[in-house]
Amino acid sequence: MTDAYYKKLDEEKVFKDPVHRYIHVRDELIWELIGTREFQRLRRVKQLGTTYITFHGAEHTRFNHSLGVYEITRRILDVFEGRPHWDEKERLLTLAAALLHDIGHGPFSHAFEKIFGTDHEEWTRRIILGDSEVNHTLRKVDDSFPQAVSEVIEKTYKNKLVTSIISSQIDADRMDYLLRDAYYTGVSYGHFDMERILRVMRPMEDQVVIKQSGMHAVEDYIMSRYQMYWQVYFHPVSRSAEVIINKIFKRVKDLYQQGYEFKQKPNHFYSFFHEKVSLEDYLRLDEAITLYYFEVWQDEDDRILSDLCVRFLNRKLFKYVEFNPNQWMNDWPKLQQLFQQAGIDPEYYLVIDSSSDLPYDFYRPGEEGERLPIHLVMPNGKIRELSRESDVVEAISGKKRTDHKLYYPLDLLMNMKEHTETKKEILTILNIQM
Amino acid sequence: MTDAYYKKLDEEKVFKDPVHRYIHVRDELIWELIGTREFQRLRRVKQLGTTYITFHGAEHTRFNHSLGVYEITRRILDVFEGRPHWDEKERLLTLAAALLHDIGHGPFSHAFEKIFGTDHEEWTRRIILGDSEVNHTLRKVDDSFPQAVSEVIEKTYKNKLVTSIISSQIDADRMDYLLRDAYYTGVSYGHFDMERILRVMRPMEDQVVIKQSGMHAVEDYIMSRYQMYWQVYFHPVSRSAEVIINKIFKRVKDLYQQGYEFKQKPNHFYSFFHEKVSLEDYLRLDEAITLYYFEVWQDEDDRILSDLCVRFLNRKLFKYVEFNPNQWMNDWPKLQQLFQQAGIDPEYYLVIDSSSDLPYDFYRPGEEGERLPIHLVMPNGKIRELSRESDVVEAISGKKRTDHKLYYPLDLLMNMKEHTETKKEILTILNIQM
Amino acid sequence: MTDAYYKKLDEEKVFKDPVHRYIHVRDELIWELIGTREFQRLRRVKQLGTTYITFHGAEHTRFNHSLGVYEITRRILDVFEGRPHWDEKERLLTLAAALLHDIGHGPFSHAFEKIFGTDHEEWTRRIILGDSEVNHTLRKVDDSFPQAVSEVIEKTYKNKLVTSIISSQIDADRMDYLLRDAYYTGVSYGHFDMERILRVMRPMEDQVVIKQSGMHAVEDYIMSRYQMYWQVYFHPVSRSAEVIINKIFKRVKDLYQQGYEFKQKPNHFYSFFHEKVSLEDYLRLDEAITLYYFEVWQDEDDRILSDLCVRFLNRKLFKYVEFNPNQWMNDWPKLQQLFQQAGIDPEYYLVIDSSSDLPYDFYRPGEEGERLPIHLVMPNGKIRELSRESDVVEAISGKKRTDHKLYYPLDLLMNMKEHTETKKEILTILNIQM
Amino acid sequence: MTDAYYKKLDEEKVFKDPVHRYIHVRDELIWELIGTREFQRLRRVKQLGTTYITFHGAEHTRFNHSLGVYEITRRILDVFEGRPHWDEKERLLTLAAALLHDIGHGPFSHAFEKIFGTDHEEWTRRIILGDSEVNHTLRKVDDSFPQAVSEVIEKTYKNKLVTSIISSQIDADRMDYLLRDAYYTGVSYGHFDMERILRVMRPMEDQVVIKQSGMHAVEDYIMSRYQMYWQVYFHPVSRSAEVIINKIFKRVKDLYQQGYEFKQKPNHFYSFFHEKVSLEDYLRLDEAITLYYFEVWQDEDDRILSDLCVRFLNRKLFKYVEFNPNQWMNDWPKLQQLFQQAGIDPEYYLVIDSSSDLPYDFYRPGEEGERLPIHLVMPNGKIRELSRESDVVEAISGKKRTDHKLYYPLDLLMNMKEHTETKKEILTILNIQM
Repeated sequence: MTDAYYKKLDEEKVFKDPVHRYIHVRDELIWELIGTREFQRLRRVKQLGTTYITFHGAEHTRFNHSLGVYEITRRILDVFEGRPHWDEKERLLTLAAALLHDIGHGPFSHAFEKIFGTDHEEWTRRIILGDSEVNHTLRKVDDSFPQAVSEVIEKTYKNKLVTSIISSQIDADRMDYLLRDAYYTGVSYGHFDMERILRVMRPMEDQVVIKQSGMHAVEDYIMSRYQMYWQVYFHPVSRSAEVIINKIFKRVKDLYQQGYEFKQKPNHFYSFFHEKVSLEDYLRLDEAITLYYFEVWQDEDDRILSDLCVRFLNRKLFKYVEFNPNQWMNDWPKLQQLFQQAGIDPEYYLVIDSSSDLPYDFYRPGEEGERLPIHLVMPNGKIRELSRESDVVEAISGKKRTDHKLYYPLDLLMNMKEHTETKKEILTILNIQM
Repeated sequence: MTDAYYKKLDEEKVFKDPVHRYIHVRDELIWELIGTREFQRLRRVKQLGTTYITFHGAEHTRFNHSLGVYEITRRILDVFEGRPHWDEKERLLTLAAALLHDIGHGPFSHAFEKIFGTDHEEWTRRIILGDSEVNHTLRKVDDSFPQAVSEVIEKTYKNKLVTSIISSQIDADRMDYLLRDAYYTGVSYGHFDMERILRVMRPMEDQVVIKQSGMHAVEDYIMSRYQMYWQVYFHPVSRSAEVIINKIFKRVKDLYQQGYEFKQKPNHFYSFFHEKVSLEDYLRLDEAITLYYFEVWQDEDDRILSDLCVRFLNRKLFKYVEFNPNQWMNDWPKLQQLFQQAGIDPEYYLVIDSSSDLPYDFYRPGEEGERLPIHLVMPNGKIRELSRESDVVEAISGKKRTDHKLYYPLDLLMNMKEHTETKKEILTILNIQM
Repeated sequence: MTDAYYKKLDEEKVFKDPVHRYIHVRDELIWELIGTREFQRLRRVKQLGTTYITFHGAEHTRFNHSLGVYEITRRILDVFEGRPHWDEKERLLTLAAALLHDIGHGPFSHAFEKIFGTDHEEWTRRIILGDSEVNHTLRKVDDSFPQAVSEVIEKTYKNKLVTSIISSQIDADRMDYLLRDAYYTGVSYGHFDMERILRVMRPMEDQVVIKQSGMHAVEDYIMSRYQMYWQVYFHPVSRSAEVIINKIFKRVKDLYQQGYEFKQKPNHFYSFFHEKVSLEDYLRLDEAITLYYFEVWQDEDDRILSDLCVRFLNRKLFKYVEFNPNQWMNDWPKLQQLFQQAGIDPEYYLVIDSSSDLPYDFYRPGEEGERLPIHLVMPNGKIRELSRESDVVEAISGKKRTDHKLYYPLDLLMNMKEHTETKKEILTILNIQM
Repeated sequence: MTDAYYKKLDEEKVFKDPVHRYIHVRDELIWELIGTREFQRLRRVKQLGTTYITFHGAEHTRFNHSLGVYEITRRILDVFEGRPHWDEKERLLTLAAALLHDIGHGPFSHAFEKIFGTDHEEWTRRIILGDSEVNHTLRKVDDSFPQAVSEVIEKTYKNKLVTSIISSQIDADRMDYLLRDAYYTGVSYGHFDMERILRVMRPMEDQVVIKQSGMHAVEDYIMSRYQMYWQVYFHPVSRSAEVIINKIFKRVKDLYQQGYEFKQKPNHFYSFFHEKVSLEDYLRLDEAITLYYFEVWQDEDDRILSDLCVRFLNRKLFKYVEFNPNQWMNDWPKLQQLFQQAGIDPEYYLVIDSSSDLPYDFYRPGEEGERLPIHLVMPNGKIRELSRESDVVEAISGKKRTDHKLYYPLDLLMNMKEHTETKKEILTILNIQM
C-alpha cells in the first residue's frame, strides 16, 4: 500500500463541463489516470457512434462521458460520506472504477465487435490489468488495486454496494449518458432532476436505495431513459449508418481472406483478422484511424468496399422499411434471391437490424441478463421494489419492445436500367411507389 | 436560370440543433448542398481546432456551425421580408453563402496554413468555383450562381447589404459561433439575446442596421465576444496544443526536404510540400487523416517528430510564461542559445505565440483590416455609429489587447541530467523555482 | 361588423415572457382586451392559489398565464394557416377566447367556490356577456362576437376545432400552465418539447390531431402533466393552506348568519352571503382585498376566525396524515367526538381533503366529465387514438389515482394542558408519537 | 449563550428554488427565523415594486429574494470554511444577517418613503431590536445577538469581513437579485457565472477578495448589473407606475391634512401621517393592504385620488418624454403654468423622475456614498483594485449615467375639449404630433 498515492492534490483541479457545470478532481490518482494515454485515447472514440449522422450535435466522445460518470459518482459519495453501510475506504476504488468503466471501448464498437468478435468489456479488463499506463498508475496505490477496479467494473467485486453505484438500473453511468446525450443532441427528453435523485440515494447493505420521497424523480428518470432509447439511440437513420460500417468491416475481412490486393493495406486490422490482438494493437485502433481507412478505401478497385465507404462518408445511406418477422417469412428469401438476380449482393446490401429495450425490470431469477431492481426505502425503513409503489413504472415494467427494420440501397434500385422485371418485383415487395 | 431549382421541398426538413432548437430547410437547393461530399466533409473538421484539449465539451465541428449560420441567416431574412431596401431575389444567394462560408476550412487550419502557406478563404472560392459537387449543385440555379456565392463570401459582391448579413461586426457567423461555442464548452459567457437582436435588425441601403431600442442587446453581444476571445479562444493551454501541431507540420516538411525516409510516408502531404495542391488533394485532408499520421508518426525514428506527436496525442503539452517583448529583448537570444547548448532544438521547442483582439472598432479608413462599424437607426430615422450612443462600447472601442506567451517543454528541462549549469540558467530566466 | 377592429397594430407589441421568450401582439383587439380593467384585475389573482406557501417561486398570476395561453394559441394558428380544415376567419375569435378563458377566476377560487357556491366558468360568461370593458371591446368586432367568444370557452361553439385548441387533453391552456408552473416553482418536471408538439399539430375536421411522428413528445407531455399534478398541484402542504382558507370563508359566513358583530365588517362579502352577486361585486373581489380581510380579522374577538387568519398569514398550518376511507370508517366519527370533547371544534379543525387525477383518458360515452381523446394522424392519413399507439399512455390510461388526507392542528393538540386522556386517544388514532 | 440554539436540525430542510435549485437549511435558528411572522410578511411585498407592470413575470417577493441571499451566503461560507482570516464563529451571525437584511421593507418602498419619510433600513433595525418574533428568536442564541445582526446589516459591525459578504460591490445580495430578477423577468441580461465567482472568493483581513483567475467572471457580473439597471430597474414604464403611486400617497396625505372626509378611512396610514409609527403599525402595512386602499379609493369623491387609483390599477399610466434639465430650464415653469390653466393640477400630473447609476466605482475618500472597491488577489498574493486589471471595468469605472424623464397624462390632454390654445402649446412643448 503506497499511502502516498491516496494523497490529495495541492489545489483542486476543475474541468468546465456543460452538463455538470464543473468536474472536480481532488485526488492525485484520478488526475494521473486522466492523463494516461489510454484515457486520452477516449477523445478519439465518439460516445454515440453513428448518432451524429442523425443528430449533428452528438459529436461528443467517451472522454467526455467518462469524466461525467466520475463526477456523478463523486457527488453520490459526498452524500454517502459518514452514513451507515458506507465504508469510506472504498471511495477511491469507486471513483477509479467510475472513471475507467468505458476504457475498453473501441471505434464504432457495436459494428466492430460483431465482425471481429472482440468485446469491449474484456478489453477494459485487459487495459486495467495489462501493461498500460492505467495499470501502472493504479498500482501506485497497491498491487492488488487494478484487480479490485476491474472487479468493480465487471460486477464481481465482493462489496455489491460499490458495484451498484456504477452499474445498476439507476447508476452514475446511465444518469450521465442520459443527461449528456440529451444535451449534445439537443432533444428535450433525457432531462430529469439528477440533483434530487442524488439527494435521496442511500447506501444500504449491498445496494443503493432511494428514499421514497424521491420516487417521482426516479419515475421521471425511467421515462427519460425510455424516450432516449426510442428517440435517439435506436434512431433508424443512425442505425443505417451503423449497418454500413458493419458491412465495410465485413467486406474488408472477406477480401483479406480471399487474398485481395489492397491499394492501402489494412495494417491496423491484421491482428483482428487473425484474432490475435495484442493490447498495443487494440489501443492503436481509434476512430481517426478507422476513418482514415474508410477514406482511402473509397479508391479501392473492389466496388463493394469502395461503394460502402463512399456511402458512409458522404451520408448516402440505406433506406429502410418496417420488417415484421411473421409477415416477412416468405418475402425474405424471395428478396434475397431477387437482389442476387439484380446483381446487388444481398450479403452487403440487404440487412435486417433489430433493436429492443426493456425500460425497467424487476428481478427475474434465472433469466438471461437479469437486472437488479430499484428499491425504495420507505419512511418506516422498509424496502419496497419500485414498481410496487409506482403506477407508471408498474405499467411499463418488464414490457420489452422490439423493432425490426430492413435496410436497402434505394438509389441502386432506382438507377437500375436492366432487370426491370426484377426491379419491379423488389419495389412491390418493399411497397415502394415509383 | 433553372427556375426548377428555386423550388421548395415538398415538406420542410428539420435538423435538431441544441443551440437554435431546430434548423429549418425549405429550399431544395440548401438540402442538396448539405448533402454534397464537400459539405459532409466539414463533419471531420472541428470548429475550434485544439480547444477541446482545454474545454473537453468543444468537440463540435464546422458542419454544426455552418448549419447554425445558415439558420440565423434564414431568420434574419424572415425579418427582412417585405421591408424596404431588401430584395427578396437575393434570398437564396444569401442562404447559400451563409451555409458555405466555411467550406474551405481544413484540419487545424491555423497551424496548417502557417506552414504550408494555404488560405482557407482561397480554398472556399476554389471549392465553390471548381469541379465540385457544391459547384454542380449551385449551377442548377444558374451558371453564374457559384460566382455570386463566392463574391458574397469574399465581400466583393455588389450588394453590400447581402455581404453584411454574413460578414460584419454583428453577423450571422459571429452570432452562431459565440452561442455555439459557449454551449459546447459550457462557459457562461457567450450568451446574449439573439432573438432580440434579430427582431431589431433592419436592412438599410448597403448594410444591416440595428434599431436603437436594441442597443443594449448589442452591447451584451460585444461583451460576450470580448469574453469568449479571452476566456476560450485564446486559452493558453489550447494554444500550447496548437503550437505543437504547428511544429509537427514544420518537422515533417523539414524532414521531407532533407530526404528523410519515413516509415509511414506522408502521402497526403506531398502536394502541399510542393505547393501544387489540386482541389482533390485539398479535400482529402481532414482531421481524421491528420490524426492518423500523428498516430503512426509516434513510431518514427526521428526523435523530434515522434516526441511532438506523442505530446499532442497524450496531452503532454508545453508549459508557458508571459512574454513581454520589451523586457525579453535580451533574454530571447540568450534562451535560444541555452536550449541549443542543452541539446533541445529551439526551433521546435521554444515558441512565442501571440494573440490579440479588438473587441469593436469603428471605421478607420485606410487601415489594414478596416472594419465596418455597427450602426444604429434612431427613432427619428437617423443613423448613428454604435460607440457614439453606448458608453460601454465607446469605452472599449478600438482598444487592442495583445498577449504574448513563451512555450517550452518543462518536462524535458526537469528531466535533464547533464548540462546542469545550462539548466539552472534557463530556469532562472524562465523564473521557475525548482 | 366593424371591420376597423380586425385591424392590425401599426407596430407589433411584445411582452417579455420568461416561458415563451416573447409574447407577440399584432391585433388591436387583443391589445385592447389586455388593457381592460377586468383583464388587468387578473394581476391580482395568483395562478396557483396557495401553492406559493410550499413552492415560494409560484407567485405568478393568472395575468401571466392568460398571456401565455394566448401566445401558444397564436403559434398554433401560425401552423394552421393555409391548411385544409382551418378557416382563417376563426383566428381572432380563437385568440380572444384563449386570452379570456380564465377571466372569471376569483381569489383562491377553489376554497371560495366551495363555500359561496360561485363558479368561475359562469363568471367568465357573465364578464364576457355583461356590462364590462371586455364586452365593449369585443363588440367593436361585431355585436355577436362576445357570444361567440363565450361559446368557445364553454365548448358549445359550433366549430369544435376551435374549441379543441383551447380546451382538450392537449391544448394551449394545459401546455402553458405545465411549462409556466414548472418554471416558477423551479421543479424539473413539467418540461416537454412544446415546439415539437406545435410543429405536429394539424387541424382535422372537428379536432386538433397530432402527426404520429410527434407521438413521443406527446407521451412526454402526458408524463409531465402526471408529475406536476402529484408533485406540485396536489402538494399536501399547499392543500393545508387551502383547507384553512376554506374554513376562514366558512367561519365568516357562519358568523354573519349568527349575527356576529365584526370589528371590520365583511363589506365585500355581503352579496356573496346573500347569493345575489352583481358583476361589479364580483370584480371587486381579488386577492389583495381578500388578504386585507384576513389581516384585519386577526384582531377579531371570535377566536376561531382570528386563529385561522393568523394560521394562514404566518404559515402555521394544519398537519396531515394519510386517510384511508375504508380503514377510517370507525375512527372518523370517534375523532370528531374526541375533538369536541377537547374543545376543538371539528367543523373547522378536522378536515378531510381529497385529490384525484386521471392523467389521460379516452372517450367513455355517457360518463361524467367525459374527455375527448388525443388522436394521432398516421402517415397513411388514418386516425388512431393515442393509447392504441403508445405503450406508456396505454399503461396509465384511465387509471384514476385518488389521495385522501386528514388535516388537523397538531400544535393545538400538543399544547393542550387539560383533557389529557382525550388528547392521548386522539394522538393514538392519528398515530403520533409524543 | 444558549448553546442549544446553535443546534442543527435533525434533518436538513430544503426549499425548491428556481434560481439556486435548492435552498438548504441546516440550522434550527434559520428555520425558526423563516417561520416568524415578520419574515412571512415579506411574502406580501414584491421584490421589484412596480416592475411587474412592465415585465409581467416580475411578481416575485422579498421573501423569495431573502431566501436567495441566505443561500448564496451559505455557499460563500462553505468556501471560506477552514481558510485563514475566516472565523467559523461568525457563521450563524452572517447567515442570520443575510436572511434578514431586507426585513424592514414595506410596500412600494421607494414611493412610500418619499412621502412619509420612513426608511426601510431604520425599520430593519427596529424589527430586529424591538419586540418582534425575529428578535425573540435571535435572543435564543444570546441576548447580544440581535444587536450583532443589526450591526452587520448596518455595516457598523467590527468584523468588516462579515459585512462585506452581504454588502459590498459584489455581495450575496446583489448576486441574488441580479440572477433572480433576470429569471423572473425573463431578460437575458443579469446572468453571470455565480458558481465561478463563489469558487474564487477568498476571505482576506477585512474584506472578501477575488482570485485574479476569476476576473472575467467579475467583469461579466458588472456588465450584468449595468444592463439590469438600465433595461429593467429604471424602465420608464415601471417608473411611471411608481410616480402614480407616489402621487396617490401624496394626495391621501394632503387630503387628510385638509380634513377631507374619506368614504374609506385610511386607518392603516394615520400613524404615518402623524409620523408616530409603532412597530405594530409598520408591520401591518404590506402590499395587500395598500392595494385594498387603492381599490376602494377608486370610489372616493375626490377626483384626483380616484383618478390616480384607477390609473394604477388599470394600467392607464402617464406617458413620458426625455427631460434635459439644461434645455428645459424655461419650459418647465411654463408647462406648470399651462397645466394649471388647463385645469390639470401639475402637482399631481406633471412629474420629473430621475434615475442614475454608477456601475462600479473605486474608493473616493470623503465622497458621499463612498463605495468599497472590488479587490483581486494576484497569484503572488498582492492585492490589486479591479479597474487596474480590467480594461472593461476601467472603461466604465466611476462613470455616472443619469436619466431624467417628464411624466404627464397624455389621455387627459388629448381628451380636452376646452382650452384648445393651452392644449396646443403644451403639446408643442412636449413635442407631440396630433
